Amino acid sequence: MDIATGGPMVAILNQKDAKKLDLHSADRLLVQDRKKDVVCILDISESRKAVPEGKIGLFEEVLDALGVKQGHEVTIKLTGKPESVAHIRKKLYGQPLTYTELLHITDDITHDRLSDIEKTYFVAASFTRGMSIDEIVHLTKAMVETGKQLQFPGITLDKHSIGGVPGNRTTMVVVPIIAAAGFTMPKTSSRAITSPAGTADTMECLATVELSEKKIKSIVSRTGGCMVHGGSMALAPADDKIIEVEHPLSIDAEGQLLASVMAKKYSIRAKHVLIDIPMGKNTKAATRKEALHLKKMFEIVGRKLHMNVKVIITDGSQPIGYGVGPLLETQDVLSILNNDPAAPRDLREKSLMMAGLLLEMTGTYKKGMGKKKAQQLLESGKALRKMHEIINAQGRREMPTLGKYMYTLRSRSSGKVSGIDNAFIAKVARVAGAPEDKGSGLLLNKKVGESVQRGEELYTIYAESQFNLDQALEFLKKKNGYVVR
Amino acid sequence: MDIATGGPMVAILNQKDAKKLDLHSADRLLVQDRKKDVVCILDISESRKAVPEGKIGLFEEVLDALGVKQGHEVTIKLTGKPESVAHIRKKLYGQPLTYTELLHITDDITHDRLSDIEKTYFVAASFTRGMSIDEIVHLTKAMVETGKQLQFPGITLDKHSIGGVPGNRTTMVVVPIIAAAGFTMPKTSSRAITSPAGTADTMECLATVELSEKKIKSIVSRTGGCMVHGGSMALAPADDKIIEVEHPLSIDAEGQLLASVMAKKYSIRAKHVLIDIPMGKNTKAATRKEALHLKKMFEIVGRKLHMNVKVIITDGSQPIGYGVGPLLETQDVLSILNNDPAAPRDLREKSLMMAGLLLEMTGTYKKGMGKKKAQQLLESGKALRKMHEIINAQGRREMPTLGKYMYTLRSRSSGKVSGIDNAFIAKVARVAGAPEDKGSGLLLNKKVGESVQRGEELYTIYAESQFNLDQALEFLKKKNGYVVR
Repeated sequence: MDIATGGPMVAILNQKDAKKLDLHSADRLLVQDRKKDVVCILDISESRKAVPEGKIGLFEEVLDALGVKQGHEVTIKLTGKPESVAHIRKKLYGQPLTYTELLHITDDITHDRLSDIEKTYFVAASFTRGMSIDEIVHLTKAMVETGKQLQFPGITLDKHSIGGVPGNRTTMVVVPIIAAAGFTMPKTSSRAITSPAGTADTMECLATVELSEKKIKSIVSRTGGCMVHGGSMALAPADDKIIEVEHPLSIDAEGQLLASVMAKKYSIRAKHVLIDIPMGKNTKAATRKEALHLKKMFEIVGRKLHMNVKVIITDGSQPIGYGVGPLLETQDVLSILNNDPAAPRDLREKSLMMAGLLLEMTGTYKKGMGKKKAQQLLESGKALRKMHEIINAQGRREMPTLGKYMYTLRSRSSGKVSGIDNAFIAKVARVAGAPEDKGSGLLLNKKVGESVQRGEELYTIYAESQFNLDQALEFLKKKNGYVVR
Repeated sequence: MDIATGGPMVAILNQKDAKKLDLHSADRLLVQDRKKDVVCILDISESRKAVPEGKIGLFEEVLDALGVKQGHEVTIKLTGKPESVAHIRKKLYGQPLTYTELLHITDDITHDRLSDIEKTYFVAASFTRGMSIDEIVHLTKAMVETGKQLQFPGITLDKHSIGGVPGNRTTMVVVPIIAAAGFTMPKTSSRAITSPAGTADTMECLATVELSEKKIKSIVSRTGGCMVHGGSMALAPADDKIIEVEHPLSIDAEGQLLASVMAKKYSIRAKHVLIDIPMGKNTKAATRKEALHLKKMFEIVGRKLHMNVKVIITDGSQPIGYGVGPLLETQDVLSILNNDPAAPRDLREKSLMMAGLLLEMTGTYKKGMGKKKAQQLLESGKALRKMHEIINAQGRREMPTLGKYMYTLRSRSSGKVSGIDNAFIAKVARVAGAPEDKGSGLLLNKKVGESVQRGEELYTIYAESQFNLDQALEFLKKKNGYVVR
């Protein structure tokens, strides 16, 4: 069949054949050619047009794996469901899972051996039944075990910011500072899924971020740092496949969040890890209580994994920096590294504070001295030089240009900015084209607490096409994301 | 695309197009032609071969609904997810659902507006969070509301046996007795899903069971009863679609079981309902405690629905009757109705007991007198005459013949039969071809408690092809389902 799942191997039989053979949807079939065989998840078709009796429909992945074409004859055999299906059932019935069981599940997810329905039961069961600390630690280790693991020279540091805040691009300031201080910081980041820019999308304005494992190792050995797309390295690959089934219902399963973050750190044997939990309306921690709970969980799981984990709760009530979108955020980062006086103070301060804490976590700097060192590395231009070193090592790219279709939003009243809606700002930037169009996004002119006059600019939207700008303007008809009082 | 889901409307976009338009898997798209439009669930393809950029892949159902063909141009618009997705999320988070919310969910399930992942979350959430009595009653009413509802003349009685016991074909004895007594018993039954025969499969050896609503109404008006396939009438159609996603993990959600059974009864406005809970190793009630709990739940839900519900707990430890498979079970039923002295005593006794209880539930017969009346109707031949009346009304079919490929299994030792494995017997009968092949199945020669000599027959397998017989014999290599001690 001219269709691919992008994941599991799928075979389709006509309903009548399935009945005759006592086969059911989601049963597993061993499909055999003379030389090769593939285990497929069975789907059943009622349509004779799609799959007539006596025929089997094989998706592209199966055809490729077997190396067969339309009209070829294959043999099928019923084979048992993966053991992990029984483990998922066990969790649904409320029983805790062991390390071995979670390893089976994670391994089958990694290798696309489970159907969407089975994966969904795993996520739903873990979410509704909850996961114990032990289960979270087991899941983390299982995710690590079923992916690539790397070890770098020197003392490895890492950081992670829980999402939800546009413009929170601290990584691109922190990594060059830490590497300039002589520590190792091999940072892998994700691309944006629902946000207007991920660190990988943003760094891509300056350098190649899709690199081979070998290349990454050599870059980090030479420069002490990197900022690459995590997808390049297949660290804890089960994670993304779990997120795929969480997404349709926007499930935020705490156990999976913890395992997801910690697995990436554990896969590169990070010794000191700083976690940033932005607290605010659209983040994963809306209240202080939630933030404190999450902080505690990260600390406990970190301890169990023998990592030195520190967690900070930061202001997530409004965007950080001025730019929202890959290129606009890159400009914020570069202005900070260049010690430009017009650089965004909030992003600069947050990055220095985080770099300082990381330096102190290594034990080399006393309390309060880490930030001083970080500031010195920034102001002396050493961080900027390190950034260029890393960019050159990864492969410098020509900077994209800002979208030339613009719209400037002006305030309809005078007063003070008392709120900026993160989710709204992110949505407008996305509709304007970010992160696919690097030069699209929003440049904020006012932040919370600043005075604004009637007619003064609140922000400018940049888009790379009139179509995208018009789409974004559609959203401005009802509100603009700012509260001016 | 030459492929059908048999359920939801599905449209596929290339990954690149989806990114550009900020669309995600399971988003809803309004696909428009000049005249018609269809809401589709979006799937995303990584393969250019399956769906190139600029193209949209539409499944057969969508092509049919729009009346368009390959190469046709369509317009797409993003449209919101059904409201019910938010309700499912609410249940996942542990909050109870209202009648209106369950109605939304049931309606969207009935009309294939939810993806498998979304449906799975509903089942998993209901199962792990549990459903309150009120929620079960709401779900039952919502299932009724979103399906066909019928009202028959006279006092309507109904029965239901919870599955798991091969040969438990009481319905085909009870219905003619009750109808002969002057009450109304419009019985709709399912076909077998995992068992070797459902009542619909068995009745089909004698008469047509797929009938229009109009025809069914006329049959019941004339004869007082019917035994038809429930699928003909679309009573509570959401039920089957929920079972589809329960099946891959063999989930037994109590709330859904209760709603499923009661919705069918409520849809035909049954006044008196007898529920049979067979207790045994492979049934839904393995222990007395479980059986008693289920009994209580049926009674409470029945009361809330203003139905007179009586629940009996019966022996489900071994098959009932001698035959397992559509034709072999039909023969058991006919021998009872014919008052053949060789008829299976257990099936005869159970059917008389159940018919008697139903008669007493109407208030017309005093305690103990119901069974007497039932026996009288059976022994006088009135039940048999009623059976022929119903068969003729539904449309008599020529009886199929027994499978001519046979194998007789003999005991390897002498002793007493101390156990028969229901699940094993059912599996062998299915592999032999039941229920698709009407004449396939098992004829038991010995039941629990009977003496058996070495070399004496335990059962005979009937199959309609050598292939099926061989498949069944494969299963006998390790064990035969009987314990003789």
